[in-house]
Amino acid sequence: MRARNLAVVLGEIRAAGPLTRAALAELTGLTKTTVSKLVSDLLDAGVVVENGAVRDGERGRPGVAVSLSGHRIATLGLEVNVDYLAACVVDLTRTVRVRRVRPADNRGSRPEAILADLRELAGQAVADAERAGLRITGAALAVPGPVQDGLLRNAPHLGWRDIGVAGQLGLHDLACEVDNEANLAALGELWFGSGQSDFLYVSGEIGIGAGLVVDGSLFRGTYGLAGELGHVVVVPDGPACRCGGRGCLEVYAGQDALLGAVVPMRGRVAALPGAAAALPAASASIDGLVSLLEAGDRAALAAAGQAGEALGLALTSAVHLLDPGTIVLGGVFARLFPWVERPASDVLSARLRQMRRTPPRVAMSAIGADAAVLGAAGLAMQRVLADPAGVLAL
Amino acid sequence: MRARNLAVVLGEIRAAGPLTRAALAELTGLTKTTVSKLVSDLLDAGVVVENGAVRDGERGRPGVAVSLSGHRIATLGLEVNVDYLAACVVDLTRTVRVRRVRPADNRGSRPEAILADLRELAGQAVADAERAGLRITGAALAVPGPVQDGLLRNAPHLGWRDIGVAGQLGLHDLACEVDNEANLAALGELWFGSGQSDFLYVSGEIGIGAGLVVDGSLFRGTYGLAGELGHVVVVPDGPACRCGGRGCLEVYAGQDALLGAVVPMRGRVAALPGAAAALPAASASIDGLVSLLEAGDRAALAAAGQAGEALGLALTSAVHLLDPGTIVLGGVFARLFPWVERPASDVLSARLRQMRRTPPRVAMSAIGADAAVLGAAGLAMQRVLADPAGVLAL
Repeated sequence: MRARNLAVVLGEIRAAGPLTRAALAELTGLTKTTVSKLVSDLLDAGVVVENGAVRDGERGRPGVAVSLSGHRIATLGLEVNVDYLAACVVDLTRTVRVRRVRPADNRGSRPEAILADLRELAGQAVADAERAGLRITGAALAVPGPVQDGLLRNAPHLGWRDIGVAGQLGLHDLACEVDNEANLAALGELWFGSGQSDFLYVSGEIGIGAGLVVDGSLFRGTYGLAGELGHVVVVPDGPACRCGGRGCLEVYAGQDALLGAVVPMRGRVAALPGAAAALPAASASIDGLVSLLEAGDRAALAAAGQAGEALGLALTSAVHLLDPGTIVLGGVFARLFPWVERPASDVLSARLRQMRRTPPRVAMSAIGADAAVLGAAGLAMQRVLADPAGVLAL
Repeated sequence: MRARNLAVVLGEIRAAGPLTRAALAELTGLTKTTVSKLVSDLLDAGVVVENGAVRDGERGRPGVAVSLSGHRIATLGLEVNVDYLAACVVDLTRTVRVRRVRPADNRGSRPEAILADLRELAGQAVADAERAGLRITGAALAVPGPVQDGLLRNAPHLGWRDIGVAGQLGLHDLACEVDNEANLAALGELWFGSGQSDFLYVSGEIGIGAGLVVDGSLFRGTYGLAGELGHVVVVPDGPACRCGGRGCLEVYAGQDALLGAVVPMRGRVAALPGAAAALPAASASIDGLVSLLEAGDRAALAAAGQAGEALGLALTSAVHLLDPGTIVLGGVFARLFPWVERPASDVLSARLRQMRRTPPRVAMSAIGADAAVLGAAGLAMQRVLADPAGVLAL
């Protein structure tokens, strides 16, 4: 009962704070004595903080209001992706307190080695947070593939299958939920992005995924595997995809397809006027592609245009099936937005015009490559807020 | 408060009845006096019925149990489709009490004329029900196209756009909700079908739609337009579709495509040994196609095989995006199941094998062409059960 009341009181503070104890009693239907005891416990645990005297609506007397505290409780977001590892820490007010990203080449890798690197990165992020007086009370991990019953089922670009990543990561004393990076990026967009509550977030890293948010909730499907936009069929007899299918969106608009279409990229980028500084370390990179696009390189423009059209075709099917509010392009597609949005929107408009008053707007994510790792930290924080008694017991 | 308590008591009776008043008090936390008053009101309104003395668990004394009554309260389901009109009445126990179907050719029709015919059919169904002592307390209407804010947005096969069908139908004194036939057919399968609670119902009539049920709830998307499987892109540069797109599933597996591929069907069917009885009235029909398939007609087998493959491709995209439990083929696809299931399942299996342990099973709907009209009556009944106070006030 106390656990439930704590969650109810904290829910009101989160939704409408700062609030006085009197206002909390009115909103929750609990007695003032009960509310005062609960608030006192939340204060002791550093979950809420007192804000000084405020007026309590029109008729109320001044009282001391409480709101969520950013000073103590925090959660850890982690991400393994194909070409980087990332960690971040957010506090209870959803302020990002620590970010760490480490470029890596994780293709065809051994999970133990990569997860050991991630554990080290996580340790550094936790140490940074602790130096700022924060206490990490939960964690979540984003991975580039579908997750079922805690198992990463298949991450074709990593070459990992049926891996119990949370167990192998081994963050002792810290529960760590694992989810698909597209799901978590969609939640990142929801909590740290533009503030919309109905959208399909398209997550383009090496692979392509999507996360549908309807009325502020993530749609996960029956087994938690929904949103695999990258494997929507674009051309039924198209080239083979790593997923085992043919002609999937990823074959046309995945990062490898984009970069492969402009080889030899290194030579092209080097030839750009004054482009020495932009020369990417690897032989091909999204930075290099963006340089070429900005310089009007024809092969690069053709590759981006083709990717945008393929994206528009897959999104046509996605709009018919999922009925999203807007479409938010994230990750690589956010960086390539000026070149892929128009062809994608043109395809959507041509094909959806008769069935819908207006096809969904295609917008650019404002939070970029951090979306998934932020969403992971946000999801862990969601768990804390739903069960504050767990934090009080620590 | 009384309205809420009525719904709570009725909810318990529906979920676990027959139940005694004592058991209801225990389950709901209401006093026995309150429960007795509510049950008495429900008895008076004919919503529940007394079943005689039962033992109340191990320690209870015998008491009189109540359960839902099928004798008084009923709802009306209606359907306008491209080639028929339908009406049905179900009682509170979800028993189907009246069914009426009228074949019709509603292509390119005037809504007023068709809706006047439907009003007449509805009147006959209501009269049948009233003769059986039933009272119709709600209605819902299935239409072959997306519905938004009560408007039928676009039914390309009817040629109707932006039609306020419930208003034009004009069932005086009877609120009538309108929804897409695929959504309502999925609810029909949920309530009157196999008893599964996680599936994608594929509704094939003249058009093709789908309704996703996850954990017993229909997924509607942001604007109620989700599940338009018929317009998932199968071949991006395929033939033009009535929706304004190209190469949609409907172009390959819609009823017109199936029947068009076996012309001249009348001649073919007539040539079957002893087939005079099976000769369809129209020049081409699903009955005729089934006769040809059973007789091994090569053009018919090729058409069904091609439709099954196209269905498999669209379902591949649907599984990646929606993550359904099983896939249930309804309507025309239920009749053609022996010929379309195998090619569809083969495509799903080949393309999904690496991403999922096992691709979703493709099953046949057991309730056939009645699914949408039954779902409509069921939806109207759902509204009654959620607010029994409304019925008591009648």
